[in-house]
Amino acid sequence: MTKPFIQELLNEMTLEEKLAQLTQLGPYYWGLDDTVDLTGPFKELNIKPHIMENIGSVLNGTGARNVIELQTRHLQTSRQKIPLLFMADVIHGYRTILPIPLAMGSSFDLEACERFAEIAAKESAAAGIHVTFSPMTDLVRDPRWGRVMETSGEDPYLNARVTESMVRGYQGKDLKEKGRIAACVKHFAGYGAPEGGREYNTVDVSSGVLREFYLPAYKAAVDAGVAMVMTAFNTVDRIPATGNEQLLRGILREEWGFNGVTIADFNSVNELIPHGAASDGSEAAEKSLTAGVDIEMMSTHYLNHGSDLVEQGKLNVALIDEAVIRVLELKDALGLFENPFKDADPLVDEAAEPCAEHTQAARELGASSVVLLKNENEALPLKKGMKIGLAGPFATSVHVLGGWAGVEKDTAVSLYKGISQKTSAEDILTAMTGELGSMLEGIFDVEDEVEEAFNRLKDCDVILAAVGENQQDTGEGGSKSNLRLSANQEKLIWRLKDTGKKVITIVFSGRPLELKPILEASDALLQAWFLGTESGNSLADVLFGDYNPSGRLSMSFPYTVGQIPVYYNAFQTGRPYDPQYPQVRYVTRYLDCPNDPLFCFGYGLSYSDFAYSGFAVEEGERIHASISVENTSDCTGKETVQLYIRDVSASVVRPVKEMKGFRQLSLAAHEKQVVSFEITKDMLMFYGKDDQLIFEPGEFDIMIGRNSDDLFTERIWIG
Amino acid sequence: MTKPFIQELLNEMTLEEKLAQLTQLGPYYWGLDDTVDLTGPFKELNIKPHIMENIGSVLNGTGARNVIELQTRHLQTSRQKIPLLFMADVIHGYRTILPIPLAMGSSFDLEACERFAEIAAKESAAAGIHVTFSPMTDLVRDPRWGRVMETSGEDPYLNARVTESMVRGYQGKDLKEKGRIAACVKHFAGYGAPEGGREYNTVDVSSGVLREFYLPAYKAAVDAGVAMVMTAFNTVDRIPATGNEQLLRGILREEWGFNGVTIADFNSVNELIPHGAASDGSEAAEKSLTAGVDIEMMSTHYLNHGSDLVEQGKLNVALIDEAVIRVLELKDALGLFENPFKDADPLVDEAAEPCAEHTQAARELGASSVVLLKNENEALPLKKGMKIGLAGPFATSVHVLGGWAGVEKDTAVSLYKGISQKTSAEDILTAMTGELGSMLEGIFDVEDEVEEAFNRLKDCDVILAAVGENQQDTGEGGSKSNLRLSANQEKLIWRLKDTGKKVITIVFSGRPLELKPILEASDALLQAWFLGTESGNSLADVLFGDYNPSGRLSMSFPYTVGQIPVYYNAFQTGRPYDPQYPQVRYVTRYLDCPNDPLFCFGYGLSYSDFAYSGFAVEEGERIHASISVENTSDCTGKETVQLYIRDVSASVVRPVKEMKGFRQLSLAAHEKQVVSFEITKDMLMFYGKDDQLIFEPGEFDIMIGRNSDDLFTERIWIG
Repeated sequence: MTKPFIQELLNEMTLEEKLAQLTQLGPYYWGLDDTVDLTGPFKELNIKPHIMENIGSVLNGTGARNVIELQTRHLQTSRQKIPLLFMADVIHGYRTILPIPLAMGSSFDLEACERFAEIAAKESAAAGIHVTFSPMTDLVRDPRWGRVMETSGEDPYLNARVTESMVRGYQGKDLKEKGRIAACVKHFAGYGAPEGGREYNTVDVSSGVLREFYLPAYKAAVDAGVAMVMTAFNTVDRIPATGNEQLLRGILREEWGFNGVTIADFNSVNELIPHGAASDGSEAAEKSLTAGVDIEMMSTHYLNHGSDLVEQGKLNVALIDEAVIRVLELKDALGLFENPFKDADPLVDEAAEPCAEHTQAARELGASSVVLLKNENEALPLKKGMKIGLAGPFATSVHVLGGWAGVEKDTAVSLYKGISQKTSAEDILTAMTGELGSMLEGIFDVEDEVEEAFNRLKDCDVILAAVGENQQDTGEGGSKSNLRLSANQEKLIWRLKDTGKKVITIVFSGRPLELKPILEASDALLQAWFLGTESGNSLADVLFGDYNPSGRLSMSFPYTVGQIPVYYNAFQTGRPYDPQYPQVRYVTRYLDCPNDPLFCFGYGLSYSDFAYSGFAVEEGERIHASISVENTSDCTGKETVQLYIRDVSASVVRPVKEMKGFRQLSLAAHEKQVVSFEITKDMLMFYGKDDQLIFEPGEFDIMIGRNSDDLFTERIWIG
Repeated sequence: MTKPFIQELLNEMTLEEKLAQLTQLGPYYWGLDDTVDLTGPFKELNIKPHIMENIGSVLNGTGARNVIELQTRHLQTSRQKIPLLFMADVIHGYRTILPIPLAMGSSFDLEACERFAEIAAKESAAAGIHVTFSPMTDLVRDPRWGRVMETSGEDPYLNARVTESMVRGYQGKDLKEKGRIAACVKHFAGYGAPEGGREYNTVDVSSGVLREFYLPAYKAAVDAGVAMVMTAFNTVDRIPATGNEQLLRGILREEWGFNGVTIADFNSVNELIPHGAASDGSEAAEKSLTAGVDIEMMSTHYLNHGSDLVEQGKLNVALIDEAVIRVLELKDALGLFENPFKDADPLVDEAAEPCAEHTQAARELGASSVVLLKNENEALPLKKGMKIGLAGPFATSVHVLGGWAGVEKDTAVSLYKGISQKTSAEDILTAMTGELGSMLEGIFDVEDEVEEAFNRLKDCDVILAAVGENQQDTGEGGSKSNLRLSANQEKLIWRLKDTGKKVITIVFSGRPLELKPILEASDALLQAWFLGTESGNSLADVLFGDYNPSGRLSMSFPYTVGQIPVYYNAFQTGRPYDPQYPQVRYVTRYLDCPNDPLFCFGYGLSYSDFAYSGFAVEEGERIHASISVENTSDCTGKETVQLYIRDVSASVVRPVKEMKGFRQLSLAAHEKQVVSFEITKDMLMFYGKDDQLIFEPGEFDIMIGRNSDDLFTERIWIG
């Protein structure tokens, strides 16, 4: 039931004012930034000044002082005194920058994900932000897409759990609570599947695959009570999401019962025109409003054409009213009618020192996200007192926040700095670090210098090669066709290997890179992602064993770009490859590379060793699968026990495996625990031919193990 | 209406005999091949001997003498004296091997495609074959897939026209005609879209994309009267095509009115089990028969389970009857009841000399398929009397028939042999040719020999680098993740370039390779495909200008494997890349490579130059687009004028361009012709939201030009 005061506000609004509530603009339209010619943007958008006084929300207008000033001015001029909503892109922390979401996904630690969102919410709230455009839960199978850094990976189950945790972390139980903000899950739907991994490219999947793989994590956000949903740039079955009625009214509202606010991604209402889905701004507004987009972001077709559309009978005003009510209800849920500034607090927001508790948390979250991919010859952990060589463009760099960081300063702790706090400065030697941006371009040009550098490195006990990709090469608009390290970085690692010293390769990246070319040259390999503010400290904790690595890949690392897409939950084929007969031609395979990725989903090592035994599936009224895990090492460690199922035969072809659960165990040295999962019917359901969720009795493989490729299996019949 | 004699045959059949009619086995089950233990295969298939006497058709049992013997024996033992149907994989010619289908597609010459099929039909018919499993008209966008060699490319329009032409060429007006055989279009549907280009992998596209891109060429075959349709290995919307009722009964039979015979691809009924679409052979038979698969190929679930399924009420015998009638009707259409040997003729089939007319045709078809991709510095055509260097693994090789050739001997004319018939042997010098299979592996190992070889080549006027991929690396089961030439082939071309001589690179391949790495090193670049028997002669004709090259790419050649899929008829996006602003980040693009392929669909050069002018679109009762094309050179040449349209805005997003016609002109030196296309409404129709074919009034771009990237455009409103 709509609250009476909201209904009254609505009743008193002109149609123009309603449309203004449904419009979001950047803060410079209000002239907060003195460098902008005030009349310019108004003219361009064709908005009348009195409309600006009634606009509903602000994009990326942040900073407690700014927000308070703008809100104050707005409430003075707004006819009905309806407070502005301030929304912003808080992607991985606001002031304290946290690991990128892909790293958080790889923590497989749902409490950590919730904490991640809580910290971001607290700092954002103090800066006056009411809504963050996060979590991004787009399932992704193609590391060429730059925006993989912003998702939690390739698995619908993991993405759903991470998303729920983040929604909880941002929103808490009540949006009015201090330090809570509304979450906006994005990008509904399927944005993570652009063809060729090329940003903004066409998305084309069958409706069954959309439902089975791409939709579940958005639905998890809705079920967790997410306040908002953002519509995607891409098409879904040839219709842009932002004008897709079946998606927005059909699936999101009717099927899932979502009652919150929908918002178009930046300019995407307008982009219906270049998309060829609307011939002009009027049709763009008509299609988006009809489809169910409540708020238009950074274009003004609702404002400019909404009244005419109603007058022409093309648009029912009831649709507009519903949207306005939802916007007003969100403002009410955030308590803005009572306190339009919410938690905006210049003292906190502008404090000279960052919050120590958050800094410590960032360090811990970072450490938990790092994935140890290889560790031979006892290369890791490092021992104090060792002489450590440090080479590569990321050795000393502070540019490792990871893109789209709320604070636009690059203030991360460098790897060098992190290590130097673990060991004395004279035990660290840097060489062959080059300029970050150039990725070692030209560094081998002067042979004398190169010779000298490698000679110096030969004095070390171990050499760390800190390599990767520029953070600007990741994120939105960061699609790449080539996923290898720059040629000189690969060369560096092989030259380091030639010194005869142990080489520990540390990869900074916002995506799975192609690491096969340097795998053999590395005694140890650490996926470092971009970990935010505390990057170097997190890594130092892992390198020296103060944190025993526990990350697991939430996305497959390809063997080569030529086998993309490669992901673990592929459908069964009629001619499966059998590794026992590698020469058979007429099976699903490449002639020149494996079907499998280099590192599979769920993969990750620890300094501890874990032995699995006693796998058993008990059938009865309820079905339980259990396994015993023992830490056979002398140090405490975390293991992530993973549950997968396979529906052997069904009315539609099923994946070779699907994750249905995982449990993260902390095991003391030589401790043993039994992990048990209940196998419930809803784990076994799937979308059948007619897109209905069904259960079909039959044989199922129940699988438990340490990653998606190393599993114990038992086949049982479930009726 | 079923003919009375067919109905009578059916009425007298036992259920087992009916199921036998619906079964196809290889000839060795009949013991024609003495090396096979007769009892073995029977046992394995669990077939009773009297059933073998009533089997309906034979797979790849060819050779006039074999066929006559087997048919004779069969008619002696078969209870009802129903002749066997002999079907075979005649992919690009039978005895005279013709260019691979991808090459034929690149001829853009529909008469040539018809002639191609006519020649194959004539030779196959003489060898006792009644049906060929061709044309393969699977649309394909991913050159990693090995089987691209067997299709005509990436465009639904071109594929449809090529397919119709081939069906006409195989079948003529009456299958009873001498020298005609039935065609079986394949692989219904979507087999050309395996994920990652990996053979037999999952196919997943939306229903709209399936209808718009993948289905039209199969439909063209049906409309052209194709006798048979083969079902694909892959899934369509998560259901294997071979068990897909919606596809086979819904679209193929009900929508399209197909009355011919459907056949499962090799073992694909059985493969419903590993696919997880059937739990055992009984369910596989039930699903396939119910879905509408008439003939089961190389597995025997129909035979072994059909009777039980009828008894259990799981299968209506009427479905079996319909299928049997269709098989008998095909036998009747081929005249087998009157003449069970049809055109089988050992004298023709075993003639010592190949047919001279066919050999000449093969040479011409080959020349028409070659695509000239680059020609600078007047590198081509060669002049007689020039001293010609010939390097690379394909310089002297006869292994260029192109895989899956009917005759399994490699008898092609080599490039060397072709050239040596144009110029005197002392003017040809071969060096650095290596062993074919190794693709120059190790050839640079002995520096003295290398030095000597390049020194010799320096005496030439021009050097041909004959490079490519092994023919075994293409075709079914030939998927590759890496599309570059072998490293030493690339090195060879650059070293040849260093000699200062003109380098003409000739690429032998069954797919678009990644040619960017050698483009700059090549003065001229010729795509030679695998041209069959007359390969070297066809190429020599082109190289020496006796045939002025006229091929146009029917598939985009990628810039890099990392931008795959890349094809011309992509959907419009909301953030198109604008080449005028190459630095803008937030548009659809890669950071490190172009969106465009290296060579686009429809691209190809000639030794003539063609000037386009006077583009005009006349609107009236009918709409015509016309353009004037002038051969501004001194030699006769062929130009392919191409028509594309773009629907600017519609209820579903439309491609940036779609080919709707082309015209191949032969223009004498300095001749000028006006080409005119009528723009008809059916060119402008598309499948709307509900998968219905519709026309929507609005703006359309009408485009004419020399390839998909070089077009004159006019935008008009069509109501």
